[in-house]
Amino acid sequence: MSAPDSIETLIDLMARLPGLGPRSARRAVLHLMAKRGMLLMPLAEAMAEVARTARDCLNCGNIGTADICPICADEARANGLLCVVEDVADLWAMERSGVFKGRYHVLGGTLSALDGVGPDDLRIPQLARRIEAEAISEIILALGATIDGQTTAHYIADQLEGRVALSSLAQGVPVGGELDYLDDGTITAALNARKRM
Amino acid sequence: MSAPDSIETLIDLMARLPGLGPRSARRAVLHLMAKRGMLLMPLAEAMAEVARTARDCLNCGNIGTADICPICADEARANGLLCVVEDVADLWAMERSGVFKGRYHVLGGTLSALDGVGPDDLRIPQLARRIEAEAISEIILALGATIDGQTTAHYIADQLEGRVALSSLAQGVPVGGELDYLDDGTITAALNARKRM
Repeated sequence: MSAPDSIETLIDLMARLPGLGPRSARRAVLHLMAKRGMLLMPLAEAMAEVARTARDCLNCGNIGTADICPICADEARANGLLCVVEDVADLWAMERSGVFKGRYHVLGGTLSALDGVGPDDLRIPQLARRIEAEAISEIILALGATIDGQTTAHYIADQLEGRVALSSLAQGVPVGGELDYLDDGTITAALNARKRM
Repeated sequence: MSAPDSIETLIDLMARLPGLGPRSARRAVLHLMAKRGMLLMPLAEAMAEVARTARDCLNCGNIGTADICPICADEARANGLLCVVEDVADLWAMERSGVFKGRYHVLGGTLSALDGVGPDDLRIPQLARRIEAEAISEIILALGATIDGQTTAHYIADQLEGRVALSSLAQGVPVGGELDYLDDGTITAALNARKRM
């Protein structure tokens, strides 16, 4: 290969990002080279800045620049509701909807016997401790409708039963969804949870 | 959005890479955050290193870390053959095949009336000057088989006619290709350029 070593190193590292392979990493690096001042240098600085400052919130696992994230530090959000999510991407998705005004708890994954992920590998012990510490009245389990997500939800529900009210997100037809394109499982769930008009 | 500003900045910059959109950029940044020491920091350093050291070869337009790239600096490659390519990605593709032993000339794009790209926006004037300076006997136009690529090849051929031998890459059935999956244009080209066995 005729590219200098420094560029080969950069391509190898870029290829390890999700969604990029060796080919698209090479294309991305050539694009970066073409926009050196506009993109490559700002990107290098932004990465160094994030590497230096970003850290996990000690309370909920959200990403922030301080030991306690802005949501945990916001007293207005201490309304007794705690929303349990798998990862930070899910927390951001909830926040984009703007409808939830309580606090979060980021598990950091789901239980998985296959991958050897047990309760102590996730932030499940910390979740139990927050119930008293923050006077939580209801825990909303906003976990994915996957096997692992639902297994995790059931495990947490078992552990906390009787100590706090538990709920999970409703299942049904997505807004804007057409019946023709829905899978059988979603239609079954929507039918079973039908509402009187 | 609940992500810190530094992370939002990083997501915005990542989303400007080819092949990544806002959604996949967010996923890539969360992956980087999860692998801070293994990936984020090395990537920031690799980018800063490339931004500091990489530059275009003054002779051929290839990317290197010196004013003259290793290929142009290699006297063994001064064999009178010059391969004209659109961009550095194409040069790398030629080098991967390992079959071409001459030097390259990177145009930096193709002529395009629609995008307002004229001969002086590409390295076409420099190409003419290299013929005498490097005693070039044959110029191989390894440009894409697209409208713009072929327009550019014809323009260069017009300009240099009589001064140097000109050739272009053969068109035909790709190695491993099945006729059933080929477009009509490729089959026509392969038929017209058929070889006696």
